[in-house]
Amino acid sequence: MMTFGQAFRVTLLGASHAPKVGAVVEGVPAGRAIDIERIQRDLDRRRPVGRRLGTRRHEEDRLVVEAGIVDGIATGGPIRIHVANTDARGADYARLRTVPRPGHADYPARVRYGADADLAGGGIFSGRMTVGIVAAGAIAAGLLAPIGVDVVGFARSVAGETADVPVESSFADLRQRRDANEVGCPDSRVAERMEERIAEARRDGDSVGGVVEVRARGVPVGVGEPFFDSIESVVAHLAFSVPAVKGVEFGAGFASARMRGSEHNDPFTVRDGQVATTTNHAGGVLGGLADGADVVARFAVKPTSSIAREQDSVDLATMRPTRLAVTGRHDPCIVPRAVPVLEAVVAVALADLALTGGFVR
Amino acid sequence: MMTFGQAFRVTLLGASHAPKVGAVVEGVPAGRAIDIERIQRDLDRRRPVGRRLGTRRHEEDRLVVEAGIVDGIATGGPIRIHVANTDARGADYARLRTVPRPGHADYPARVRYGADADLAGGGIFSGRMTVGIVAAGAIAAGLLAPIGVDVVGFARSVAGETADVPVESSFADLRQRRDANEVGCPDSRVAERMEERIAEARRDGDSVGGVVEVRARGVPVGVGEPFFDSIESVVAHLAFSVPAVKGVEFGAGFASARMRGSEHNDPFTVRDGQVATTTNHAGGVLGGLADGADVVARFAVKPTSSIAREQDSVDLATMRPTRLAVTGRHDPCIVPRAVPVLEAVVAVALADLALTGGFVR
Amino acid sequence: MMTFGQAFRVTLLGASHAPKVGAVVEGVPAGRAIDIERIQRDLDRRRPVGRRLGTRRHEEDRLVVEAGIVDGIATGGPIRIHVANTDARGADYARLRTVPRPGHADYPARVRYGADADLAGGGIFSGRMTVGIVAAGAIAAGLLAPIGVDVVGFARSVAGETADVPVESSFADLRQRRDANEVGCPDSRVAERMEERIAEARRDGDSVGGVVEVRARGVPVGVGEPFFDSIESVVAHLAFSVPAVKGVEFGAGFASARMRGSEHNDPFTVRDGQVATTTNHAGGVLGGLADGADVVARFAVKPTSSIAREQDSVDLATMRPTRLAVTGRHDPCIVPRAVPVLEAVVAVALADLALTGGFVR
Amino acid sequence: MMTFGQAFRVTLLGASHAPKVGAVVEGVPAGRAIDIERIQRDLDRRRPVGRRLGTRRHEEDRLVVEAGIVDGIATGGPIRIHVANTDARGADYARLRTVPRPGHADYPARVRYGADADLAGGGIFSGRMTVGIVAAGAIAAGLLAPIGVDVVGFARSVAGETADVPVESSFADLRQRRDANEVGCPDSRVAERMEERIAEARRDGDSVGGVVEVRARGVPVGVGEPFFDSIESVVAHLAFSVPAVKGVEFGAGFASARMRGSEHNDPFTVRDGQVATTTNHAGGVLGGLADGADVVARFAVKPTSSIAREQDSVDLATMRPTRLAVTGRHDPCIVPRAVPVLEAVVAVALADLALTGGFVR
Repeated sequence: MMTFGQAFRVTLLGASHAPKVGAVVEGVPAGRAIDIERIQRDLDRRRPVGRRLGTRRHEEDRLVVEAGIVDGIATGGPIRIHVANTDARGADYARLRTVPRPGHADYPARVRYGADADLAGGGIFSGRMTVGIVAAGAIAAGLLAPIGVDVVGFARSVAGETADVPVESSFADLRQRRDANEVGCPDSRVAERMEERIAEARRDGDSVGGVVEVRARGVPVGVGEPFFDSIESVVAHLAFSVPAVKGVEFGAGFASARMRGSEHNDPFTVRDGQVATTTNHAGGVLGGLADGADVVARFAVKPTSSIAREQDSVDLATMRPTRLAVTGRHDPCIVPRAVPVLEAVVAVALADLALTGGFVR
Repeated sequence: MMTFGQAFRVTLLGASHAPKVGAVVEGVPAGRAIDIERIQRDLDRRRPVGRRLGTRRHEEDRLVVEAGIVDGIATGGPIRIHVANTDARGADYARLRTVPRPGHADYPARVRYGADADLAGGGIFSGRMTVGIVAAGAIAAGLLAPIGVDVVGFARSVAGETADVPVESSFADLRQRRDANEVGCPDSRVAERMEERIAEARRDGDSVGGVVEVRARGVPVGVGEPFFDSIESVVAHLAFSVPAVKGVEFGAGFASARMRGSEHNDPFTVRDGQVATTTNHAGGVLGGLADGADVVARFAVKPTSSIAREQDSVDLATMRPTRLAVTGRHDPCIVPRAVPVLEAVVAVALADLALTGGFVR
Repeated sequence: MMTFGQAFRVTLLGASHAPKVGAVVEGVPAGRAIDIERIQRDLDRRRPVGRRLGTRRHEEDRLVVEAGIVDGIATGGPIRIHVANTDARGADYARLRTVPRPGHADYPARVRYGADADLAGGGIFSGRMTVGIVAAGAIAAGLLAPIGVDVVGFARSVAGETADVPVESSFADLRQRRDANEVGCPDSRVAERMEERIAEARRDGDSVGGVVEVRARGVPVGVGEPFFDSIESVVAHLAFSVPAVKGVEFGAGFASARMRGSEHNDPFTVRDGQVATTTNHAGGVLGGLADGADVVARFAVKPTSSIAREQDSVDLATMRPTRLAVTGRHDPCIVPRAVPVLEAVVAVALADLALTGGFVR
Repeated sequence: MMTFGQAFRVTLLGASHAPKVGAVVEGVPAGRAIDIERIQRDLDRRRPVGRRLGTRRHEEDRLVVEAGIVDGIATGGPIRIHVANTDARGADYARLRTVPRPGHADYPARVRYGADADLAGGGIFSGRMTVGIVAAGAIAAGLLAPIGVDVVGFARSVAGETADVPVESSFADLRQRRDANEVGCPDSRVAERMEERIAEARRDGDSVGGVVEVRARGVPVGVGEPFFDSIESVVAHLAFSVPAVKGVEFGAGFASARMRGSEHNDPFTVRDGQVATTTNHAGGVLGGLADGADVVARFAVKPTSSIAREQDSVDLATMRPTRLAVTGRHDPCIVPRAVPVLEAVVAVALADLALTGGFVR
């Protein structure tokens, strides 16, 4: 299904090597101001261009609004946006038709959709589809801001280099420090080591993975829908649609498994006349509903599947083993580009639930 | 939303302290044999009764089929099943109305639903709602078996005690060894240590968490729906609805973040005339679709929130800090009972996707 | 699918000859007062008991609230309600298993669901399933009332006897005059003739049909969702789920086909400082959205399929022609009982759209 | 919501005066041949160009396939198709911004979406959006053909001139006779009178309505989903999304209301070894499921709202009454163009239900 969401709906359009990629966004009330420049800024954060660390594929990614926004105001109808795919080079992908790339959708997609399926550039399995998610996320963030919700994502770890990011950091500060380096990590010293690991991987014709963390502050207590549309459920559903995400956790996450209840339970206290928790092992979500603390989600991003080093594969035409080196232009680490995507994932999920629950009107 | 799924739909009914809990299951083709005894067996695995380690709440959990199954055969109409809540003791929960339990849905649910909301026993936030998921999972497993899919879950770790369960283990063997102890861990020596940790926690009026692993073998290559209904998305959506789950990962999961691409990518080879992978870091899912290897999912289960030890909370009536000891009957570790629930989660998700994709007819 | 609606969701439970029938209603905001007595009153209007004209099946139809309402206030969780099926006589239906009743779902249901399908009393195809719709409609009406929406249905025609009901009638007056007779027609003289036609049909072992009209006043301008969830679309979707409905029209409806544009278009004027139309051929809906005039829908109700007179059928066991007289207890005309059902249909559809569009909060 | 359907999903794209209009179609199994020429032919039938009776707006409506079809074969991914809006003249619509056209969505859309909403040419309320429905219908018909389902639509009546079209007519013959005239009516003599009525209306600066009938032959017994997705429900939901449709009926439809049960019930008999009905008052649908007879649906199409004659309206800027003559290029009767649209509606609805029920694989 190419559509996600109930009250705030995103339908992805296009494919990696189609003329363009984009999205239709439904559910934005008429009359809302839409910050087009913010959408463009988020798309720019997602682009590899200009990055020392990135792929050499060049895409302008100029936002085109086709419908639903007039003079910066939502019409209430479906918002349709896209960017052109100006630099698609199908030839690079010719050999993939019979030899599936390890770590890619090629093999199951070919079995499911047949030899004629449009798999060039990953088709609809490509990371390029996330353009639509980023654009939708920027719109979602615009719906959340007036009710006081702010969402920020950053690279928490790359190739084992992990930043310790204090929970009390201001979001403005986090953003500024994150944007001061190419990996999107708020700790400049760790960022430097991350860049080294990525450069090493590039030299080796290899790739590395990492962890993206996204925090949402100001989520009204009670956002989320039991039983099946908990905040965690909706965020994870969307996050696991993003290629390369292999794990999702909230708050203490997998570390909870080694904790005792007396340690894990976040005690309640009164702060500024409001109920608050003194720790945040729950990641801001109790029983699927926001509890007022920061919603904290972490996403495991696997190392880029496309690598220059030769790998074992099978020629599906002959069913004989063969070797494959992926020659396209690829990032040795997609964590930096995954930051705006997963930030968008959390924004879209929260906007959908906030609209559903009547918190945004 | 109390309904999950597209082609195989589960609607949960009842609440923790309502007369009963159950589910409506839609999408089972007419004429299918339904193994009622298997549903009962899975419900029994979920029950605390008779467990040395468990809560003292006693529920018979006798399955009642209200509709949709006649003489063991699905009618094609909605299947409605329930078990009675025979042992609900509302009185235990009286004080919770103004003092929210740390780690529970009490506080956000009260803000969202108001002081009169039916929160006794957690209402619809209770783990008891998973009775319906377990029953639906048993029916889902019955749809998957004829196409060769088998699903098995087990306790992978409890309180830091972790079992190493070889990937090549036969599922029959896994089941037998898992069912030989109370914690549901296939490694008897680790199981013993897990039980010790649980017993210690009980003595301390505390609780412990753990990790459940579920494997699905024989999933046809190609099951899963891009973009938004990847296997990971659908499994995680449902899993994060289960109270206490705080993390979900597939294959290498969060460990992927520290791997290189050359290490993480599963090489393709030819085995028995079929394409196969020589490792399974992807957890059987590439691009959201099954790649033929075992689907491997792990779920972080937090320590039980209800503990006997006093904790800090706030009296919402007076907005003053107070102390709370939860006096109900509670498991010091719900991992053993979460095993059949998360096994059911994977079965329901795969059945839904297999039906959607035309793999089950 | 047993679930209808997006923001206001109704899931029907039970079957004709199951122990009970009812519904789960989701989407009612926490804290809303629910008028239980109104639900019961509407259920009573749907009952045949005490009607000179009705079936001899006696059902108490006492409303039982299982969850979601505490002390008359919605908890915000799913509302689950049912009535018992106290008078189900399965034996009456034994022969139907091999000889399908003309005009009933028996034949296609048997082909679809097989010989063992639970078709006694129509199973889930029975008109008795509409109990859940009526209950949900009463709750929906309770959501609509505070924003000024009132919904009233009545028998417009029976067996060709048609009432002329002025468009300017007050709804209070319509209700009073409608409830003064057994057929539910606001024109007492026409009602008398309707009763005669029904009595004649009963004497002949036959049945008659009719038309139900439902009007909704005060629907806020703009309610409805383009493109696919127009008011007409959502009302008709739900109405055509009601057994026996074979046509749905709005405003001038089929008569529009013979009108000219200059005659059909409702001219705009200014009334009490508001835009208004001087006629209502559109039935209060333009482009799928409410235009401020009364929403006016009419529903064609076919004559009851179950009749005492012998009809031609086929014994599916032998595939030989046979004759069948349906011996159960059946209304010679279900129009009077369809009035509260179709009133509920309009209320549910409008509540769903009003919630979706943010008109009810 | 711009998306319709469960297993066969159609998302409409674009708007009347956007650069293009089209659709995304999901659910077509990989490997299916897609008859592109048939889609183009159906789009041509929907076009006004070359019609003596039509609007003077000229659109080429050349089909562009953007994704999902490679060399005439479905890839299994989303199919995205569009046609350009080459002849949009926004200026014609300038005045409508403050003076709503009677019979149009202008007024409620402006209230709902505000003064800045993109209402030029009706925006997403325009009949031009049906381009995507027609294209999806042609694809749906291609899914239905291999299981023996054929769908044909025709003008049943225009301005009171009604054709009597025998139920036993072959569909090939119906098509041929329908395509021999411009109104799309299989009876050439009635067609001539229809054309006269349309010409008269045009001369008078007025418009006329009519009735479209669609028949589907060969629908497998049992297609349809109780309770809420009856064939009638799904067809009507989609049909009432089409601008100008104000009534939908099946089989005897509103005439049922005046029939007796003994007359209306279709008797069963055995024909060619199969169960069959000797009449078809049910319109091929019993209990929401196909009964094997032709599915017969009729749709009331109101007279075109845009007429040259002056009408009463209100200037929303001044809230004063004013007069309005719509000066754009408009059909005096859209019934001929509604024929392929409503044919597509029935095909899409049946394909969705046939896929859902496992009848198409």
